[in-house]
Amino acid sequence: MRKLKLYQVKSNCIMMFLIFASFIQATGTSAMVQEELFWKVGFHYKSNEKPKEWYDALVPGAVQIDYAKAKGLGDSNYAENWKDYLWMEDVYWTYITSFKKPQLAEEEQFYFVSKGIDYRFEIKLNNIRIFAQEGMFKPVELDLTGKLMAENILEVLIYPVPKIPGTPASLYRSNAAQSVKPAVSYGWDWHPRLIPSGIWDETILEIRNQSHLNDVFVDYELSDDFQNAEIQLKVEGKNLENTQYEWKLTDPAGKTSRLKSGELSGLFDEKIELKKPLLWWTHDHGTPNLYTSEFILKRGNKLLDKKVSKVGFRKIQLVMHDGAWSKPDTFPKGRSNPPVTIELNGRKIFGKGSNWVNPEIFPGIITRERYAGLIDNAVNAHFNIFRVWGGGIVNKESFYELCNEKGILVWTEFPLACNNYEGSPHYLSVLKQESEAIIKRVRKHACHAIWCGGNELFNSWSGMTDQSLAIRLLNSQCFLLDPRTPFLPTSPVMGMAHGNYVFRYFDTGDEVFQKMPRSSATAYTEFGMPGTASVELLKKIIPGNELFPPKPGTSWESHHAFGAWQGDTWLMKDLLESYFGKAENLETLVGQSQWLQSEGYKCIFEEARRQKPVCSMALNWCYNEPWITAANNSLINYPNQPKPAFYEVANSCRPFLASARIQKFSWTEGEIFSAEVFILNDLYESIPQGGTVSIKLRAAGNEIIVRKWEFGKAEGNKNIEGPAVQTVIPQWNTDRFELILEVEGNEQFSSKYLLQYKRK
Amino acid sequence: MRKLKLYQVKSNCIMMFLIFASFIQATGTSAMVQEELFWKVGFHYKSNEKPKEWYDALVPGAVQIDYAKAKGLGDSNYAENWKDYLWMEDVYWTYITSFKKPQLAEEEQFYFVSKGIDYRFEIKLNNIRIFAQEGMFKPVELDLTGKLMAENILEVLIYPVPKIPGTPASLYRSNAAQSVKPAVSYGWDWHPRLIPSGIWDETILEIRNQSHLNDVFVDYELSDDFQNAEIQLKVEGKNLENTQYEWKLTDPAGKTSRLKSGELSGLFDEKIELKKPLLWWTHDHGTPNLYTSEFILKRGNKLLDKKVSKVGFRKIQLVMHDGAWSKPDTFPKGRSNPPVTIELNGRKIFGKGSNWVNPEIFPGIITRERYAGLIDNAVNAHFNIFRVWGGGIVNKESFYELCNEKGILVWTEFPLACNNYEGSPHYLSVLKQESEAIIKRVRKHACHAIWCGGNELFNSWSGMTDQSLAIRLLNSQCFLLDPRTPFLPTSPVMGMAHGNYVFRYFDTGDEVFQKMPRSSATAYTEFGMPGTASVELLKKIIPGNELFPPKPGTSWESHHAFGAWQGDTWLMKDLLESYFGKAENLETLVGQSQWLQSEGYKCIFEEARRQKPVCSMALNWCYNEPWITAANNSLINYPNQPKPAFYEVANSCRPFLASARIQKFSWTEGEIFSAEVFILNDLYESIPQGGTVSIKLRAAGNEIIVRKWEFGKAEGNKNIEGPAVQTVIPQWNTDRFELILEVEGNEQFSSKYLLQYKRK
Repeated sequence: MRKLKLYQVKSNCIMMFLIFASFIQATGTSAMVQEELFWKVGFHYKSNEKPKEWYDALVPGAVQIDYAKAKGLGDSNYAENWKDYLWMEDVYWTYITSFKKPQLAEEEQFYFVSKGIDYRFEIKLNNIRIFAQEGMFKPVELDLTGKLMAENILEVLIYPVPKIPGTPASLYRSNAAQSVKPAVSYGWDWHPRLIPSGIWDETILEIRNQSHLNDVFVDYELSDDFQNAEIQLKVEGKNLENTQYEWKLTDPAGKTSRLKSGELSGLFDEKIELKKPLLWWTHDHGTPNLYTSEFILKRGNKLLDKKVSKVGFRKIQLVMHDGAWSKPDTFPKGRSNPPVTIELNGRKIFGKGSNWVNPEIFPGIITRERYAGLIDNAVNAHFNIFRVWGGGIVNKESFYELCNEKGILVWTEFPLACNNYEGSPHYLSVLKQESEAIIKRVRKHACHAIWCGGNELFNSWSGMTDQSLAIRLLNSQCFLLDPRTPFLPTSPVMGMAHGNYVFRYFDTGDEVFQKMPRSSATAYTEFGMPGTASVELLKKIIPGNELFPPKPGTSWESHHAFGAWQGDTWLMKDLLESYFGKAENLETLVGQSQWLQSEGYKCIFEEARRQKPVCSMALNWCYNEPWITAANNSLINYPNQPKPAFYEVANSCRPFLASARIQKFSWTEGEIFSAEVFILNDLYESIPQGGTVSIKLRAAGNEIIVRKWEFGKAEGNKNIEGPAVQTVIPQWNTDRFELILEVEGNEQFSSKYLLQYKRK
Repeated sequence: MRKLKLYQVKSNCIMMFLIFASFIQATGTSAMVQEELFWKVGFHYKSNEKPKEWYDALVPGAVQIDYAKAKGLGDSNYAENWKDYLWMEDVYWTYITSFKKPQLAEEEQFYFVSKGIDYRFEIKLNNIRIFAQEGMFKPVELDLTGKLMAENILEVLIYPVPKIPGTPASLYRSNAAQSVKPAVSYGWDWHPRLIPSGIWDETILEIRNQSHLNDVFVDYELSDDFQNAEIQLKVEGKNLENTQYEWKLTDPAGKTSRLKSGELSGLFDEKIELKKPLLWWTHDHGTPNLYTSEFILKRGNKLLDKKVSKVGFRKIQLVMHDGAWSKPDTFPKGRSNPPVTIELNGRKIFGKGSNWVNPEIFPGIITRERYAGLIDNAVNAHFNIFRVWGGGIVNKESFYELCNEKGILVWTEFPLACNNYEGSPHYLSVLKQESEAIIKRVRKHACHAIWCGGNELFNSWSGMTDQSLAIRLLNSQCFLLDPRTPFLPTSPVMGMAHGNYVFRYFDTGDEVFQKMPRSSATAYTEFGMPGTASVELLKKIIPGNELFPPKPGTSWESHHAFGAWQGDTWLMKDLLESYFGKAENLETLVGQSQWLQSEGYKCIFEEARRQKPVCSMALNWCYNEPWITAANNSLINYPNQPKPAFYEVANSCRPFLASARIQKFSWTEGEIFSAEVFILNDLYESIPQGGTVSIKLRAAGNEIIVRKWEFGKAEGNKNIEGPAVQTVIPQWNTDRFELILEVEGNEQFSSKYLLQYKRK
């Protein structure tokens, strides 16, 4: 395989590029260095027109970014600038590049390869249409060999974004209901309406041997005792007759574990045994061991192609929690809840994590580094799983590679969310094509834990059911292509729960403190708690004259502080004022909002953990965000700036901690304060000596010891229910106080909660 | 296609048969008359042995029947005779027949065709193994042409029934958990342990043109307004190059609706439009209109093959009931219940029916007439649906043909029940093969309404879940081969309920009268009420000296009167005595048992209907039985003798009736009797004039009019809630009384309930 090194020649005519085909023969491989391919882009109103103007194009990227840069549009993050981008949805865009015919040896072929073009597009070579596709996830691999001229012009025509005529403006997202385009960019309660278009993933020209590899999948099945992996190499390629292979598996320490070579035709039914593989674990339960697979295709001594990939050996299942089969317990009787407890290599683990959303409005510009920063923070937060929400994209390869390395499980949803996705033959054929591409890519990753049909599809606002053909198609596709990975038709399924997303319920007036202990779910796979961005970030997105006090109809509203979801979301001014009165300045308001977000989130994460083993997962809504929101349920502001709640949640997700179930947020002098104390324990090693929890209230420099609780042996993966404690709230000169659970001699297990105090 | 007429030559040697190949050229078709093929059968202990003795074999049938007949074993229905059959499970059986090589024209081929051989088998021709299969549902079609000698011996070797070594005796049915063999015959609470083996469906030798049809599937999709059917003919066959076809569709009146002919190769993508098809309805909602499809394969003027089938045009969906999307209504929130309301041609219908079980211990001897009698009775009972329970077989073609004709929907389960079916590669491969055969056969039938993975798989006693590969395979297979038919992974799914199966609950002591009104389900797809067989039938199965009083350890127990399920099922002597005291003779005991069965079943059927639209189905457990049970939940004793409860249930299933919710069964003089009165209405035509219900108590020739209730316009498919009525139970000289709801002037809508009376 050779890759082209291409240089743009500066000239007046954008069509003229000079190509150097630079072939560096690396030792033992045919890998080539490849430099940038230069693209221009422009828009037009009809499919058969050409752009009147061309702009430099970033590939991968999005047409909107290129236009904005060329025309000096304001940052889409700032104020109401996003509105300037709206018209770009409804025009055609054409990308163009050109290249000289390369010198090809007899067995060589010349390919155009793109990992993703968004969304409906055509490809033209020298003004002849050579390819058309609907769907951004299926890679394009086009053999141009027989079609080349001395000078070649390659164009990619992008259609306007898919919409459904007659969709009411209020149902913006429903425009995505007949396409496999992520719905989020049509507008969401934390995402502006900004719908990306264009080439969004790596795109190259490439010289290949006519016998080459398209895919090497190191499939395997672990024995029940995890002492043996039965590996099956699943190889796809072109013209593989009379080829041989060499395969090498290297362990995490770089030592060769397995070698295998022979005729390729002999490989297909062969099972290759690997004894005592080092297992892949999430970072909180072990080491995310990764092996390296190197697969070489050759004919005689001639190297034809090579594929290198990482392999992690692990078994992931969804299993019933302890006691689950005992329900229902009376006739007339339904079925038992479906299993949602993650079992990793035979160990039931509590899933702690968050809902991952697109980290950029334009996924084309997401880099490995953008992913890496966010994923590193998830490790810091003791998260072991991301639910990658179906409103957004299926992430790029580097996302999965990083989760493999960092030991974080990934729940991948197909791009269906909050719509009734049509079972029309056309939609189903695109969904089949796209799901096949997605499954064949994602199934290889050690971190890949769960397939899911999409978000909240079996709820009233979506209106899909188990009978919907799109869901049955996805279940079938996953079964056929990746049967060992659990499949959920949607989230929530029976037993699971989503919501709520506010500190105090609009309907009942209950705080989250009162509501959550009364709830029971097998997994809380979404729950939110709004908080504002920091003052510093707010100043980056909201013009100075709008900053304070926040008002509807301003950039605050565009950035989701007002009217985002039901009630006064997400700033929740009414709620804040009901607790704190009117804030006098922005700093105070932000402090109040972030305080409630912190304590609200702690309450839910810890309550979900208290409900173990019935409950086995706590995933808050949401982790990150694609632009800077003024207020949102996110833990991390765009691009990667944790809110105070992030650090509090990180504490709530420590494997071992003292935790309190608190009755309410606001306390008045003289009231009887009460709380129930627990040890939350996700560690598998027991702590035989137990310990002592000193339960205190602290305020304005004063401290009351309410009680000391000695807990005994902490058994692996079992919480300990402690005492309910009570004390009279004393007279203090403050507006807040802390409940402190101090684990004596083990400060790393201690916890504290910041609550409101009022004088009588 | 020619079929052979075979005559057996009486001789000492069973190997010698003389064959007449009798070819009757019917006008316009190539159909042939075919007579019996003569078989013998015998057993042996090792696969490579031959039987020491041969017995005349009935084909289709079962080896047990042949052996029993040859050796004069007692009727398996009587007393404990079934025990004499047990050893037959564990030996090999070989069927044998012989035939002369037929005269074949140049283009002709000679086939062995069997619609079903149970369960694992091999086929040998002249002592050479030519075929092997595991699975009783995939038909066998073997081209013998090139393998024939002048005289031919054909053998079918049947393996011992599948079992799992080490399965505890108490888990008898679990022996079936790694096979696609119906589990019921391993023993159930109403089925003796008697596991059939052998050739169980039509089996012939046949001459075919080398160009012939294997399958013609008249697939279609109805337009949303049901005014148009878009037909697609899906044809499978051998050597179809350069053939032509003629297709004729005849309407129910015999008039040709559609003609089509041409090159077969041109047919495959063609959509054929049929305007205003006469729709197929269930008998209670319209006419089960059936068209006749006649498909002729020819080359030039030469007729090659022909397939005739019935087609009913209808659209069946499972939809959400009115109000279903409003639940769940609070956060944290799960999904809404899955849809289980049947919508037939756009009309939501209440599913009234029963659970169908094998009508014979040996399915091989089920004839069209056996099916017909039972299906006719279902029409009499106002049933519009059978759930064909997954413990038994997928029924023969004649079952579906009769349900097509009679207008009864069929819910077909795959053969999985109450076990954790293994996801082993071997099991899955057999399940894939068998499910494909089942789906391709059943999908053609108008009555075919629902696919279901099997019985109670997601409950503790089975231990399967949504993640089980067998269920995912079946969902995938149904999606790929029959996507327009709803698929349920199992029964019950979320929202549905099974049980209870007794008149008074063992755990709480509640009667069904108290329990059912407190239950809420979207469908009651199993509920039972035990009752004994008639005295006459009991005398047929229980030796005279054991008849009275019934005792455990006798034929009563073998016939399920004692220790069948939990508690004292199914005779429930304790329960009967608690109401009635000790019965003095068999006639009295039978009367008591059948009384409770009648009133118990009425209570549940009518309560389920009262819960419409949340509830949309009431299917009692069970309809029929495979042998004469002494006591059972069945409505019809073997072979087709309705119990008294059958007629009471038939009344409860009338489309329109007055109905009472009654508080309890037994009433004492002076108590305040109370009941709530309703009109239950499944009719779609409204009854504008309403009517008057006269509510009475009648006992010992006395009658009290409790109240007259005038109900207004009865709107289509809507129940009417009437008054709660009360009256003091008077002094009577009797042990029973009737609650009568007399619809004045419309006696066909009236109802009555027989309750127990006690003096103070």
